[in-house]
Amino acid sequence: MLRLNEVGWIEKDRPACGPKDAIVRPLAVSPCTSDVHTVYEGAIGERFNLILGHEAVGQVVEVGSLVKDFKPGDTVIIPAITPDWESVEAQMGLSQHSGGMLCGWKFSNFKDGVFAEFFHVNEADGNMALLPKNVTPEEGVMLSDMVPTGFHGADNAEVAYGETVAVIGIGPVGLMAVAGANLRGAGRIFAVGSREVCQEAAKKYGATDVVNYKQGDIVQQIQEANSKKPVDKVIIAGGDLASFEQALKIIRPGGIISNVNYLGSGDYIKISRLDWGVGMGHIRIVGGLMPGGRKNMEYLSNLLKYRKLDVSILLTHRYKGIEHIEKGLALMKDKPRDLIKPVITI
Amino acid sequence: MLRLNEVGWIEKDRPACGPKDAIVRPLAVSPCTSDVHTVYEGAIGERFNLILGHEAVGQVVEVGSLVKDFKPGDTVIIPAITPDWESVEAQMGLSQHSGGMLCGWKFSNFKDGVFAEFFHVNEADGNMALLPKNVTPEEGVMLSDMVPTGFHGADNAEVAYGETVAVIGIGPVGLMAVAGANLRGAGRIFAVGSREVCQEAAKKYGATDVVNYKQGDIVQQIQEANSKKPVDKVIIAGGDLASFEQALKIIRPGGIISNVNYLGSGDYIKISRLDWGVGMGHIRIVGGLMPGGRKNMEYLSNLLKYRKLDVSILLTHRYKGIEHIEKGLALMKDKPRDLIKPVITI
Amino acid sequence: MLRLNEVGWIEKDRPACGPKDAIVRPLAVSPCTSDVHTVYEGAIGERFNLILGHEAVGQVVEVGSLVKDFKPGDTVIIPAITPDWESVEAQMGLSQHSGGMLCGWKFSNFKDGVFAEFFHVNEADGNMALLPKNVTPEEGVMLSDMVPTGFHGADNAEVAYGETVAVIGIGPVGLMAVAGANLRGAGRIFAVGSREVCQEAAKKYGATDVVNYKQGDIVQQIQEANSKKPVDKVIIAGGDLASFEQALKIIRPGGIISNVNYLGSGDYIKISRLDWGVGMGHIRIVGGLMPGGRKNMEYLSNLLKYRKLDVSILLTHRYKGIEHIEKGLALMKDKPRDLIKPVITI
Amino acid sequence: MLRLNEVGWIEKDRPACGPKDAIVRPLAVSPCTSDVHTVYEGAIGERFNLILGHEAVGQVVEVGSLVKDFKPGDTVIIPAITPDWESVEAQMGLSQHSGGMLCGWKFSNFKDGVFAEFFHVNEADGNMALLPKNVTPEEGVMLSDMVPTGFHGADNAEVAYGETVAVIGIGPVGLMAVAGANLRGAGRIFAVGSREVCQEAAKKYGATDVVNYKQGDIVQQIQEANSKKPVDKVIIAGGDLASFEQALKIIRPGGIISNVNYLGSGDYIKISRLDWGVGMGHIRIVGGLMPGGRKNMEYLSNLLKYRKLDVSILLTHRYKGIEHIEKGLALMKDKPRDLIKPVITI
Repeated sequence: MLRLNEVGWIEKDRPACGPKDAIVRPLAVSPCTSDVHTVYEGAIGERFNLILGHEAVGQVVEVGSLVKDFKPGDTVIIPAITPDWESVEAQMGLSQHSGGMLCGWKFSNFKDGVFAEFFHVNEADGNMALLPKNVTPEEGVMLSDMVPTGFHGADNAEVAYGETVAVIGIGPVGLMAVAGANLRGAGRIFAVGSREVCQEAAKKYGATDVVNYKQGDIVQQIQEANSKKPVDKVIIAGGDLASFEQALKIIRPGGIISNVNYLGSGDYIKISRLDWGVGMGHIRIVGGLMPGGRKNMEYLSNLLKYRKLDVSILLTHRYKGIEHIEKGLALMKDKPRDLIKPVITI
Repeated sequence: MLRLNEVGWIEKDRPACGPKDAIVRPLAVSPCTSDVHTVYEGAIGERFNLILGHEAVGQVVEVGSLVKDFKPGDTVIIPAITPDWESVEAQMGLSQHSGGMLCGWKFSNFKDGVFAEFFHVNEADGNMALLPKNVTPEEGVMLSDMVPTGFHGADNAEVAYGETVAVIGIGPVGLMAVAGANLRGAGRIFAVGSREVCQEAAKKYGATDVVNYKQGDIVQQIQEANSKKPVDKVIIAGGDLASFEQALKIIRPGGIISNVNYLGSGDYIKISRLDWGVGMGHIRIVGGLMPGGRKNMEYLSNLLKYRKLDVSILLTHRYKGIEHIEKGLALMKDKPRDLIKPVITI
Repeated sequence: MLRLNEVGWIEKDRPACGPKDAIVRPLAVSPCTSDVHTVYEGAIGERFNLILGHEAVGQVVEVGSLVKDFKPGDTVIIPAITPDWESVEAQMGLSQHSGGMLCGWKFSNFKDGVFAEFFHVNEADGNMALLPKNVTPEEGVMLSDMVPTGFHGADNAEVAYGETVAVIGIGPVGLMAVAGANLRGAGRIFAVGSREVCQEAAKKYGATDVVNYKQGDIVQQIQEANSKKPVDKVIIAGGDLASFEQALKIIRPGGIISNVNYLGSGDYIKISRLDWGVGMGHIRIVGGLMPGGRKNMEYLSNLLKYRKLDVSILLTHRYKGIEHIEKGLALMKDKPRDLIKPVITI
Repeated sequence: MLRLNEVGWIEKDRPACGPKDAIVRPLAVSPCTSDVHTVYEGAIGERFNLILGHEAVGQVVEVGSLVKDFKPGDTVIIPAITPDWESVEAQMGLSQHSGGMLCGWKFSNFKDGVFAEFFHVNEADGNMALLPKNVTPEEGVMLSDMVPTGFHGADNAEVAYGETVAVIGIGPVGLMAVAGANLRGAGRIFAVGSREVCQEAAKKYGATDVVNYKQGDIVQQIQEANSKKPVDKVIIAGGDLASFEQALKIIRPGGIISNVNYLGSGDYIKISRLDWGVGMGHIRIVGGLMPGGRKNMEYLSNLLKYRKLDVSILLTHRYKGIEHIEKGLALMKDKPRDLIKPVITI
């Protein structure tokens, strides 16, 4: 990213490695819709000469003197969120906000991202995890952002056995929210999206019903399919601010609306006083950035290692060579019909 | 209540007692702002010839054949919320919504209230509790609604040791939210209200700072007093829909905004996209009707029995004789400067 | 059950139906190891002329005057645990202990069980659930006890994404604990048991590793397989009091040992002071009777309805005719090599 | 500590300060019963020439190059537990066990303690907190161990409004467990201890009943006082392994037994199978080392800053001068009748 609306390649020095840090060479990366938001919508404001990218599996090339658990040559997963673990926020279980709201998100936000020959990882012992031997770098890169973000949506929704869950938005994050809800024991899962490739994937990940917003109001469609009964939980992984209004119309008292969608535009989410039970319906509205860090990567990677989750369904477009990153980014911007997620191995 | 905007006395038959029910004669009652909402604002819609009132301590005069734990002559607390305990909602821990959103609230909503010679209690074994011997009916009546509602606000805010909490609104419910936050171990407590009698009471209940919204923007006042640091939790026990916008401006990532205010008017609560961390700040927005039922009454009454909570501070206006209920209702409507809560013993 | 160690058929009157109750005719029943404990080990003490059985799907033949949601002819699941929902315990979320420790368990304990022409269900609206149309009575009967007990073990263990879980004991309850852990997102699952039919089933339900206690110390086997790393959680669904000592040797700090095994004999569970971190290791030891009631049945039956759980794997022995109940009970007592669970349709 | 059973002064070099560390000069320290366990009971095994002490308020004299939030001259609280915050365990919310069971406890365990001219603090930004201006060092030192340990006991017991809690052991930690239970809203609190100075303090901290184990079986005493009703929670902050057996006899189904007592001797805690509800009573047995770190110190210090907790009641013996540490240690060993806790300012 050279500036808003302009991308290109930048020549930069290899970053310096502090005593707790690591320098990593990417083996597989994936462009993310957030990168598109950053460049083309200015979602996080203007940035100049910022290297994009925050999803990567890589090889360690250097570690700082205080790093104990990793060494050059290790193949590691790097999460999109790399918190400062000593911070008071991390001690509160809010590592995503270490140092301030959303400040655990550093790559392609406060510092250069992973679309580079080498990139820098802060607090390496706390922010990298070994890639399991039976997981490929291409699969592993889905653990940087797609899996943890979608699964965080299901976790925050506190999905429980047999619950009925609606997932609004079934791009790669939404699909992982479907999979996450399914792996928390959901019963019926409504997956809301229009592209067929995503609908098919949603079914593989556990969706029992697909709802196409292009074929009518989703509130009505879900209510009808569900015999007018409300759903237990709603995960918002796409759509826009209006999705919250829809969610409130289909959810039961005591339900949870869990957002993991980066809300890129608009001023206000509007919560209908009446749908919210005049303030007394126990409907919780929550939303949060995925947790990063090593522990989270290790546990989520177990799902791939032990074949409980197949992320290969997401990888519709595979490229080889760092030069294909631009193409990948363009794909995420244009979202062709057959795309879920591109991955580039290097 | 004869109809909207009109109150008076109605002659009705003593209610019939089903096999699980009880008939109770009030010993002490208290009018509530909700009664005012009901009559003068039509908050729950038109109602004809509805007996008002949902806060009472009374004497059991009759019990149904299946009632095991109570007998005529017992002095009991009757909670404002009297759920259907067999319902699926109650089994989910959402007894307030047994049979539908807010349907655990029956008195002066779906059925006649407690401002009567005799009133009816559904599922008596599950919805009454013995008044402890060392608690007066006047004090006990605060357990029907004021204590459980305020404390529910603190519970839902998950107030923890040493946290900084702002309570917006310090009428009797807000004061109990202050006391509830204090009894969950809050450190600094900002109490937002303008009337001196309430401010003084707030300090007795544990508020460390009083903020008067008539003396400037409360967001600015709290931020300044707190050295620009955000607060951990906000309990909304007064104000209006705009209070949520203020709450979002003073709360930290990961904080909770907990509403117990009956939101009587307006269309939408507006959640600022940016203040809410573009959907990713982990700021939870929750709100719920107090839990009723026997267990809750028994546990909360322990706080009075063992002198951990002094509700007498709330009782600024005491009357004797059922005929004073109208005066009490008028007080709640007009809110004179020296009023916190009236109580009428019968 | 005529008395300890003696079973036979008893002639009894059809039970009377109270105002909130139902009388049900069994369509499918299954004998349980608990029945064996009751008759042949005297686990709950002497009982005379007690009808056994607490797992049934049946047809409603009569409902009391206060029952609103069911009518004669309905096909319903009846949970093994049928609490008193108005009780203080149920209001605390401990319906299993309504009226006293374990007193939510009534069938074949305090009152006659389901191995009869007709049986009685207390608080029918709260304790029965409609059998989904696409679930057979044979499958549905697994929802009475096997599914909720095993899943309760996984719930109490708070199994989370990617965790490593050991399930000790893989009879039908243990198998459902495996399935429950898997449906909460476990990564690696060690299933401890010796019979091949159960080991095979465990793999189908999500176990990644099978450990045979007849082939050596399970502590050693699990430690070796897991590269000396401790497991996150242990679910005890079989074995005996010594299983807790083993569990403590393989679990990590902060782990949970979750028991759902009816502990039929022995005086004390022994918690090694050192393995328990001199009292400071944050290893939680929990154990609880399955929650019964309608809500639980409805939500768990969704897993069968939406094909997220296949209980037919459990049903190794199927019979037709009430007269086969004795044979089923004998099977549960003798546990032949090819048995998981017998079911009798009537 | 020179070796087991022998204490004396050792000459050591001032410790070196790593990039994330701090060197601190103690202003106030307090000997702990754990120090006595360490020296005279060999609870953590043999140690040679180990400087004792883990409770201190001090002045920063040096900080490492990566320390951002503290500087020489700052007056800080140092918690007894100083975790490695990047560790996977800390990321799981188990910082006490960073690097292994109990390994967050470093002072006078793995490294020299605070009874020295200077001592070393690892990860200073994460493990120190500024002492509030209106709190004296003598009071502040109670935040190192006594307050967080006692309060952790109440937190783990999940004490809720109006609950009845028994606290076994009312030395300084037990007294803080009483205060912690009280600040979580307990109703009735039984404080079990024999020394009058502690009993009096317990009442000031919120105990409603005092039980002296020298005057009879505590189980019987509590049952009688509580009209045979079980208590909701038990916090074990003293006694020995047999205390768990007593706790099980007085607790209700669904209750929690929460241990914060360092269990120094004995082989097994014995859990009665029957009292534990044959494994199904939902009685949870938990126990954990206090959480250390900056966040915890900051929040707990708010309770002193805002006068919600008065720790001065604990400080029965005050000395001035580093040379009095030996006397303080002797006091903790001998426990004279008028002692709660000694503090030495330097």
